[in-house]
Amino acid sequence: MRFEVLACAGAARRARLTLSRGRVETPAFLPVGTQATVKAMATEELAGLGAEMVLCNTFHLMLRPGTEVIAAHGGLHRFMNWPGPILTDSGGYQVFSLGALRTITPDGVLFRSPINGDRVFLGPERAIKVQRALAADIAMVFDDCTPYPVTEAEARISMERSLAWAVRCRAAHGSGPGLLFGIVQGGVFPHLRERSLAGLLQIGFDGYALGGLSVGEPKADMLDLVGHLAERMPAERPRYLMGVGTPEDLVEAVRRGMDLFDCVLPTRNARNGHLYTSRGVVRIRNSRYRNDTAPLDEDCPCPTCRDYSRAYLHHLDRAGEILGARLQSYHNLCYYQNLMRGLRSAIETGDLDGYAAAFYARRSQGTPPVRLCHNGPP
Amino acid sequence: MRFEVLACAGAARRARLTLSRGRVETPAFLPVGTQATVKAMATEELAGLGAEMVLCNTFHLMLRPGTEVIAAHGGLHRFMNWPGPILTDSGGYQVFSLGALRTITPDGVLFRSPINGDRVFLGPERAIKVQRALAADIAMVFDDCTPYPVTEAEARISMERSLAWAVRCRAAHGSGPGLLFGIVQGGVFPHLRERSLAGLLQIGFDGYALGGLSVGEPKADMLDLVGHLAERMPAERPRYLMGVGTPEDLVEAVRRGMDLFDCVLPTRNARNGHLYTSRGVVRIRNSRYRNDTAPLDEDCPCPTCRDYSRAYLHHLDRAGEILGARLQSYHNLCYYQNLMRGLRSAIETGDLDGYAAAFYARRSQGTPPVRLCHNGPP
Repeated sequence: MRFEVLACAGAARRARLTLSRGRVETPAFLPVGTQATVKAMATEELAGLGAEMVLCNTFHLMLRPGTEVIAAHGGLHRFMNWPGPILTDSGGYQVFSLGALRTITPDGVLFRSPINGDRVFLGPERAIKVQRALAADIAMVFDDCTPYPVTEAEARISMERSLAWAVRCRAAHGSGPGLLFGIVQGGVFPHLRERSLAGLLQIGFDGYALGGLSVGEPKADMLDLVGHLAERMPAERPRYLMGVGTPEDLVEAVRRGMDLFDCVLPTRNARNGHLYTSRGVVRIRNSRYRNDTAPLDEDCPCPTCRDYSRAYLHHLDRAGEILGARLQSYHNLCYYQNLMRGLRSAIETGDLDGYAAAFYARRSQGTPPVRLCHNGPP
Repeated sequence: MRFEVLACAGAARRARLTLSRGRVETPAFLPVGTQATVKAMATEELAGLGAEMVLCNTFHLMLRPGTEVIAAHGGLHRFMNWPGPILTDSGGYQVFSLGALRTITPDGVLFRSPINGDRVFLGPERAIKVQRALAADIAMVFDDCTPYPVTEAEARISMERSLAWAVRCRAAHGSGPGLLFGIVQGGVFPHLRERSLAGLLQIGFDGYALGGLSVGEPKADMLDLVGHLAERMPAERPRYLMGVGTPEDLVEAVRRGMDLFDCVLPTRNARNGHLYTSRGVVRIRNSRYRNDTAPLDEDCPCPTCRDYSRAYLHHLDRAGEILGARLQSYHNLCYYQNLMRGLRSAIETGDLDGYAAAFYARRSQGTPPVRLCHNGPP
């Protein structure tokens, strides 16, 4: 792999990640294909929108269809018809949030499958083995994702456990194939986060991710922590903010120096009629759109906005039609990809502040300050 | 409009219907867009598959989003982004099958909307008015669709009522815009069907449809009746078999001289994992496909068969993923459009019997005889 920083604007970076299956221009947003499909989307559409890498969920896929089914296709790429790079999470987050009747041991977690009640084990070695069978271009370490709120003592135990598992993941992964990213944990406690990052740096990874954020903590605290950690993360490696976020979150995290993002919001919200436009959110289910022959977002070039009216989208939503989920998912992902394109271009031209100001002005919002808190967030 | 018969093979015809919004090569299958969307499909995909006309349901659309919403878009074409010809049914079939608490009067039917319980009236004049607001290229007369089984006396009353309404629809429609087709009713009673057809011919329509078939009567009786009526329908007008059917039904009805067809089967079955292939039906939900890396139908050129395995389709179906409905609807409609293309070409080359024989042989079925029953089916 190669990771080249091409330009900077403040803490923000414009970079290029080159992997064996393709190039990812960063800052980049990865659409989420939980079950080996980005919901309601065809993979050609994702590529057409400019997505260069997608995320798939190890936890879901090992339970269904099962690792061996995907391995029989030579990995996820042929299985889901996405020839480009794929990042897989390790399953850690879902084991702790979705697995029933969990038993945590030093070796990993024994849990019951929420699909069929089977007893399943996932730990550092197995998470790496499964991700290799999925043929992940970027694998993630198996971590204990600290929930919110927790006490400092609980956050410390969880962070130390993640660090111990990170060592084992690094050993299990060896020299690949594919990259392996470490995940910084430690809840909302800056010194625990710093300790986690230092431990990961000592082990050495191809990239570093921030996990366990956007799990309920106040937004300002999250962004302060992101800014605080981003400046401590190595400049020559990709920085990945997991599971984040809204368009505002992406703008702010990019301004703070993060490179990679994934989130279910654009697709999940699309299916619930929560649509992102240049002027803010449109909730298409609202009866005010019943007769509205205007396009969803007249500044948007996508087919949903070019070929259909708000009234039609409103009708599809009310009628529960699959085409509604399609058109709206396409639009929201188009919005996200265009946002990332705009951010990349603004960093290149050195006017990221201007881009952010225009972004907020169109939504009648003010630009929030980037707080540089060298002593850590409050 | 123009309707030119280009070639014949036995009773079968290869014709071309030219409408102001486009040309329809017949025999043709119309995908069904009940709620102004062919479920799970984009209109560009329909056009790409070779569909030249779609059907929309007056009953559903007048209840939701409401006629005035579609009229505000200038009709269905812009509303649903389908620039080609649209045939609308009259709502008669659904009023009788879906409308609650119906009161039938000589002027039409008063019923309760199954969506919100509103009292709604539909009769011949109103059905024409609504179809005009939808900007239908082909409108259908408002008819009383005879169920199965019924007594001959009931079928006669229903048929005579349909005929009386057909007179009023013809008057309300005047000279258009758009075409108006009459609908032959009369249940499974050949002499009632003949009386219905004679009455419609006397009124005079742009095309003639067979309604109230494939509603539960034995398949052989249906096909005998279709053959019996097709040879009595005017050769110089399109003949439309409403709501039919399976691939076998289409082959047999084309062999008997019918030109136009519509049916929800390819899309509805697709969503239930019931997939049409050159070798017969594949029920993709079956666990035998869990590990099957082969394409759904290796003889099919569609992206579903080109880019995905049976195991992936099985997985999407089990996981309830929207992409499953998309890929499978696309495939089934591709199968139907290719079948119609094959039938058209076989009539042109004069080898319809050979085409039918090959169709059945690939499915390990024998070709059923076309019974020519000049005295009417038993």
